[in-house]
Amino acid sequence: MTDVRVIEIKKSVFADNNEDAARLRSELKGRGTYLLNLMSSPGSGKTTTLIQLINRIKDKIKVAVMEADIDSDVDAIKIKDATGIESIQLHTGGMCHLDAEMTRQGLDNVSLDGTDLVILENVGNLVCPAEFDTGAVRNAMILSVPEGHDKPLKYPLMFSVCDLVIVNKIDVMPYFDFDLDKCSEYVHMRNPKARIIPICAKTGEGVDAVADWLLEEVYNWKH
Amino acid sequence: MTDVRVIEIKKSVFADNNEDAARLRSELKGRGTYLLNLMSSPGSGKTTTLIQLINRIKDKIKVAVMEADIDSDVDAIKIKDATGIESIQLHTGGMCHLDAEMTRQGLDNVSLDGTDLVILENVGNLVCPAEFDTGAVRNAMILSVPEGHDKPLKYPLMFSVCDLVIVNKIDVMPYFDFDLDKCSEYVHMRNPKARIIPICAKTGEGVDAVADWLLEEVYNWKH
Repeated sequence: MTDVRVIEIKKSVFADNNEDAARLRSELKGRGTYLLNLMSSPGSGKTTTLIQLINRIKDKIKVAVMEADIDSDVDAIKIKDATGIESIQLHTGGMCHLDAEMTRQGLDNVSLDGTDLVILENVGNLVCPAEFDTGAVRNAMILSVPEGHDKPLKYPLMFSVCDLVIVNKIDVMPYFDFDLDKCSEYVHMRNPKARIIPICAKTGEGVDAVADWLLEEVYNWKH
Repeated sequence: MTDVRVIEIKKSVFADNNEDAARLRSELKGRGTYLLNLMSSPGSGKTTTLIQLINRIKDKIKVAVMEADIDSDVDAIKIKDATGIESIQLHTGGMCHLDAEMTRQGLDNVSLDGTDLVILENVGNLVCPAEFDTGAVRNAMILSVPEGHDKPLKYPLMFSVCDLVIVNKIDVMPYFDFDLDKCSEYVHMRNPKARIIPICAKTGEGVDAVADWLLEEVYNWKH
């Protein structure tokens, strides 16, 4: 049985999360570590996408993953088994999101020396995580085809704060009423600059484009 | 264009939500109105399920619907267009859940006289809505096949507080790794008494069983 570290996250004591997030981002800049905050609904395929993504970049840059969940450590174990990289589980103890201080509690348990990229898999939730700056350089989110193309209309803040929208499970598009053009239109209503990349995490289709985007992001952050 | 009432919900002022919820439930008992709180992830098919369900029961009992959403009024319009029943939209203004006082603000805008059943479609979120008693007689939730059968492991509280788990989108079961037996096992780890009903809201398959459950619930509440 694979063993992963499980960190029980405590409630934050800082009053000003935005200030704390800016401080964390600046510390990460100093170390040359890029932090990506990945959000989505439950069951959109965050973990499967991460495995495909990490296996495409782990020979080029040093990557670590923090898996946030209310309970269970299945995701951190899955990532470690499938990629071999450092993967820790953060337990939020019922809390519905991570803020900068909670993210820092996780980072304190990651070997940051020489680590180019830390990916934070946030709690599966389209509402609360969008409200809190985690200190990440960028926010990305996964919208899966079965959820429907109208989600940017219903969860406006989530789509406003994300620079990358990954549309997952495109292999089942024929079985759902999902219109990618309408989806793009709605996403761009919320964030005109958002990049949209359709993928199928199960087969790996499209994940190369996500890997290219992320490698360029990390390179620019370090230079 | 269909017109529906849109209610902007304000933050609650009550300190003790549990007490307030119990009070609301007792008032509803006095009026003979049953309140069902329906929860799920974004995109699990709450609105489509409700349309199928309401069309099966609206000739037997008087039903009204409150659609909670952070933004947009597409759901309330859809329900009204497809069923003809009273349907209002609650805007939470970014808030991730409804508590009893917020539910009451919605109920104040529903014609309760002679109404046997009010269904509250909660904000699409598997985390926060589970933490707040809305004053409903029962909580029900929809888990859709594409989300995966492991969700009761990851969102324990949601499954603990629900008396009915509707498993939706069973028509796409062949395209996903979804194990209904495992799902039932995990649901019953959280709530041994939970009833599980598999359906396909798109075709209506299985919805009769949900209608039967609900009609019996409402009958027992009124007698």
